[in-house]
Amino acid sequence: MSEMPSRDIMISAFSENIGLEPVRIGDGEAEVSLRMAEHLRNRGNVMHGGAIFSLMDVTMGLACSSAHGFDRQSVTLECKINYIRAVAEGEVRCVAKVLHAGRRSLVVEAEVFQGDKLVAKGQGTFAQL
Amino acid sequence: MSEMPSRDIMISAFSENIGLEPVRIGDGEAEVSLRMAEHLRNRGNVMHGGAIFSLMDVTMGLACSSAHGFDRQSVTLECKINYIRAVAEGEVRCVAKVLHAGRRSLVVEAEVFQGDKLVAKGQGTFAQL
Repeated sequence: MSEMPSRDIMISAFSENIGLEPVRIGDGEAEVSLRMAEHLRNRGNVMHGGAIFSLMDVTMGLACSSAHGFDRQSVTLECKINYIRAVAEGEVRCVAKVLHAGRRSLVVEAEVFQGDKLVAKGQGTFAQL
Repeated sequence: MSEMPSRDIMISAFSENIGLEPVRIGDGEAEVSLRMAEHLRNRGNVMHGGAIFSLMDVTMGLACSSAHGFDRQSVTLECKINYIRAVAEGEVRCVAKVLHAGRRSLVVEAEVFQGDKLVAKGQGTFAQL
């Protein structure tokens, strides 16, 4: 993997608020972690699905950025997520991989893990601007 | 529509942090609004896709709660979102409708609007616990 880009071009205000932490990025792949916090809890007292989706969307976006370069922008066109396991405490990690980087669009998949347990799986399409 | 349930059984810590505001709920439908704020901005300076998804997921969950009652819980199994239009400022509203309430699962659709413009469309499956 190539050198990590500077934090301020990777992390938006939204990512900062959620608590997302980039771990590695490069060659069409990215990994981002998220530690459980009180502001991430849903009505069932576990990590909100919106937080898990946000982790996935951001990790996918960084994987795209690493594929086409941080000097270009990409936006999510669509994304589908399956939730598999609830997260009550601790840290989760998302790994996203660009499956296909076309001239106009990128197809990306992502998995969220807690330890070796699969928490969520997603697949999305990004448009390169 | 029936009377609005109390705020504390509708709004999680996560929803509070994002800034979600329930507008109406009842008969398998829900409407929730979200006003643009600095902590919702992405790297492109518009409303983050994770925030829009979270609005949708919460609205769908409230529509489910109104269908099976707030004394039971439901969780998102899967959800697919299409992003159609960016949001730079102002308020968006999500309307979610339960299409089918089965004994074990619910199928829900949702639309996010800014004024009369469609911002995002989603479709999801919830499990009733």
